[in-house]
Amino acid sequence: MGWGDLGVYGEPSRETPNLDQMATEGMLFPNFYTANPLCSPSRAALLTGRLPIRSGFYTTNGHARNAYTPQEIVGGIPDSELLLPALLKGAGYASKIVGKWHLGHRPQFHPLKHGFDEWFGSPNCHFGPYDNKARPNIPVYRDQEMVGRFYEEFPINLKTGEANLTQIYLQEALEFIQRQQAAHRPFFLYWAVDATHAPVYASKPFLGTSQRGRYGDAIRELDDSVGRILRLLQDLGIAENTFVFFTSDNGAALISAPRQGGSNGPFLCGKQTTFEGGMREPAIAWWPGHIPAGQVSHQLGSIMDLFTTSLSLAGLEPPRDRAIDGLDLLPAMLQGRLTDRPIFYYRGNTLMAVTLGQYKAHFWTWTNSWEEFKQGIDFCPGQNVSGVTTHSQEEHTKLPLIFHLGRDPGERFPLSIASIEYLDALRRITPVVQQHQEALVPGQPQLNVCNRAVMELGLGCILIRKRGKLPGPTVCTSYALEYGKAELEIQRDALEPGQKVVVVDDLLATGGTMCAACELLGQLQAEVLECVSLVELTSLKGREKLGAVPFFSLLQYE
Amino acid sequence: MGWGDLGVYGEPSRETPNLDQMATEGMLFPNFYTANPLCSPSRAALLTGRLPIRSGFYTTNGHARNAYTPQEIVGGIPDSELLLPALLKGAGYASKIVGKWHLGHRPQFHPLKHGFDEWFGSPNCHFGPYDNKARPNIPVYRDQEMVGRFYEEFPINLKTGEANLTQIYLQEALEFIQRQQAAHRPFFLYWAVDATHAPVYASKPFLGTSQRGRYGDAIRELDDSVGRILRLLQDLGIAENTFVFFTSDNGAALISAPRQGGSNGPFLCGKQTTFEGGMREPAIAWWPGHIPAGQVSHQLGSIMDLFTTSLSLAGLEPPRDRAIDGLDLLPAMLQGRLTDRPIFYYRGNTLMAVTLGQYKAHFWTWTNSWEEFKQGIDFCPGQNVSGVTTHSQEEHTKLPLIFHLGRDPGERFPLSIASIEYLDALRRITPVVQQHQEALVPGQPQLNVCNRAVMELGLGCILIRKRGKLPGPTVCTSYALEYGKAELEIQRDALEPGQKVVVVDDLLATGGTMCAACELLGQLQAEVLECVSLVELTSLKGREKLGAVPFFSLLQYE
Repeated sequence: MGWGDLGVYGEPSRETPNLDQMATEGMLFPNFYTANPLCSPSRAALLTGRLPIRSGFYTTNGHARNAYTPQEIVGGIPDSELLLPALLKGAGYASKIVGKWHLGHRPQFHPLKHGFDEWFGSPNCHFGPYDNKARPNIPVYRDQEMVGRFYEEFPINLKTGEANLTQIYLQEALEFIQRQQAAHRPFFLYWAVDATHAPVYASKPFLGTSQRGRYGDAIRELDDSVGRILRLLQDLGIAENTFVFFTSDNGAALISAPRQGGSNGPFLCGKQTTFEGGMREPAIAWWPGHIPAGQVSHQLGSIMDLFTTSLSLAGLEPPRDRAIDGLDLLPAMLQGRLTDRPIFYYRGNTLMAVTLGQYKAHFWTWTNSWEEFKQGIDFCPGQNVSGVTTHSQEEHTKLPLIFHLGRDPGERFPLSIASIEYLDALRRITPVVQQHQEALVPGQPQLNVCNRAVMELGLGCILIRKRGKLPGPTVCTSYALEYGKAELEIQRDALEPGQKVVVVDDLLATGGTMCAACELLGQLQAEVLECVSLVELTSLKGREKLGAVPFFSLLQYE
Repeated sequence: MGWGDLGVYGEPSRETPNLDQMATEGMLFPNFYTANPLCSPSRAALLTGRLPIRSGFYTTNGHARNAYTPQEIVGGIPDSELLLPALLKGAGYASKIVGKWHLGHRPQFHPLKHGFDEWFGSPNCHFGPYDNKARPNIPVYRDQEMVGRFYEEFPINLKTGEANLTQIYLQEALEFIQRQQAAHRPFFLYWAVDATHAPVYASKPFLGTSQRGRYGDAIRELDDSVGRILRLLQDLGIAENTFVFFTSDNGAALISAPRQGGSNGPFLCGKQTTFEGGMREPAIAWWPGHIPAGQVSHQLGSIMDLFTTSLSLAGLEPPRDRAIDGLDLLPAMLQGRLTDRPIFYYRGNTLMAVTLGQYKAHFWTWTNSWEEFKQGIDFCPGQNVSGVTTHSQEEHTKLPLIFHLGRDPGERFPLSIASIEYLDALRRITPVVQQHQEALVPGQPQLNVCNRAVMELGLGCILIRKRGKLPGPTVCTSYALEYGKAELEIQRDALEPGQKVVVVDDLLATGGTMCAACELLGQLQAEVLECVSLVELTSLKGREKLGAVPFFSLLQYE
């Protein structure tokens, strides 16, 4: 959903009376951000309070490449990450997730393995349709049990847009709240609905009711549902004891516009980009009797703050053994205090931009590739800011493009690099970014797409790459090729000591690369079970270089 | 000011608490339009309830050419137009205009000649600076008397942006209201301030206080002033007896962005264009105890409706002897009733587009010329919708570009002309436009820029043009050239019978054109005093063809 999709954020059709009312009774954050312009990483950030680069919710498959968890991805939320529901257990909270999980679809990654007590929903997004064989429709779970699939037991009519899912999700939410209230148990409900994701859907009473088409129908149903949840809290007399926060995981997907895409208001581009349209989100806090009604907070907020704030509300401290990026928003909400803090904009493992105060600096600009763009895939339809909405990845790390977001929220007029204002802004931003990057320990990447065979076996996949391609601390080795010299790198924390590894390459020639890979793995104390290649040039005797390590090739060539 | 400049319309800095509060206590119109993307015509429309094409507030100097009243313009609001303050006199209302008039700067056009009882402000906009000789600074009047000039007696510091004007205008407003209330006189106050027009200004207490730069400072001061006016009405106990409406005359001027230009929210382009960004305006109605608080009306509204609505509030009928385009908004405001009506978008004398319901059809698309664009003048910075934001005038009168403004408020995705939706929309729009155009009687154009000598004499200027170039009913004549045939036209209502005319052309050759012009003027019963040309080709004896009409040429060539 986009920043501009709510009436209170200026959507002209003004079809969100319940969310607008929530803002009237609560606090509106116009400067609130998700942690990534795509779903899975944002949701990991929400539940861990950490940037996706720390929790491993990124890919090293390409530079500045977005990634999430389609069925092909075997990664997921690592056991080493501490999720909000698990921590809230320490204060006696019952936790339920309703809707889209998106932190890994293999059983070990499911919500109930990571602190939730209940789950009704799907591991991935509902889009499709699939052929139900090689790529089955996305399953729907109740707790650990699969209870059906989208388009089958849980129908979504792609032609009419009719689906009853939001109503089902609403009932799940209402029932959970009622049950906890009856048991006098504190609770954490993560209501993660996905009706506004293409293919957009709504239930029959809402279909065709919006001035905005089917996307608006879906928004109206979400708005109505939020209203019903808030009303239930009031009816049960627990409104003053329940903190509610509304936000979204990424900006509206303009590639789906105008029929299935929403609005990012005055902001540039949308989902998948690190312009404001991709990452600035609607955000409303509601806690009657505590948060003063009808206020606006200019605190730079992040979806990760919900982690820290929720812990704070439960009287808990955030974990001290790891970097936490979330801020406690209670001072902003209860005392109107503002805290100076940066907002980091990542795509994959690349720090694209940072906002500090009113200034946003872009170190890299990119919408999407020329190849995609030529095929009609456009992340910024109708928008074209010369030198800013670039179709190739443009580096500005030495002299970032800097915008003043107050005067220029649409990122159309970069400050002149000769201006005093530019130099002042850069002087403030540089040390903050340096500190962030020096202290950063990237997690093991969870969202790499590897060889299909590996993927189907459900095994993990670690990349060994040429020097300079991998983020974070690495281990490096240099070796001789038959035609020169090369250096290979692996991330230092990619493997645990003793982990078993098969090394895969396309070609074995003199064996230098394969051997260097084994050496790197040895440095990490991994156990190399076997090396394999597609083609082996037998006359070059690379196999001999591998010594005792078993080697297998599919094709041999003299 | 732009649609997106108010917090309640989604401006992220949310710096208009008084206007937002006005909306909370009153009614917000998200679909409200001015009558022209430029100042003078919009203001004429507001006060006459008529499209500028009817009142003559347009130019025939060029196709789709915007025009206003700079110092060079000798035209103004015709005596034949009935202005709101003059009509309100019939119900005993005292009227005052504070600020920018813009309906003609020659004495006969001044506000007090057209129904206002009081005036404090300027005939034109404050921009400059001028050299104070050939082009003096704009004068400031109190009633009929000039009391100083901008930048002189009424300083505007171009460097710091400091000017006390809004505070002066505010005091004028407050004092007028107090005086009328003390005298128990009904009143009409037209508070037409211009602080957000480049060069943007604010008074010292507001300078530097906005997150949006100097433009935001100006907005904050306007917002504060509106709050003080509303508070006075409440303090005097006349709030429930006073109807207040806030709107603007055109969208934010994006050519002045980011330092002096505002925001048109999610809409395309800005001032000077007939895209939504140029003509959709913020609009709030406030009348405590009558208009229900916190409501949104989806009525398609127009600045011209303020004419008709104001008359209705005063118990008066709009004039019946002329076409009135304004609608009475009281049914929409008091009973929530919606009236189906078209919104016409003109540039000069060209009908560029029309909105009916959710559908907007563009008959012509144009931002600004390639020549201007290449010089860096851009009415749509950062926006580029292929085939829509065109730099040449593109005609679509046969198959208009149609947008669904609900799904696509940013006018980025024209409907496919092969779709049923397109055909349905076109079928509804076509008869409405036909009826409008058939019944239209354009007024005599007031905003033509003519020969400088004529302008300096302060005389009117009528164009005689080739066939098909003039709007409305015309008189035509055909005549022989030395190298073929030609047709000339004049607007039928361009002159009154007996009006004295000098005919001016660049060249007199065989005299055919000059003679045809005299014939046309004869048809309109004008009195041709003399014909003049710059160059006369004496050997062709054109002079003889003119018979008794005196002729004068500056240069003669054998």
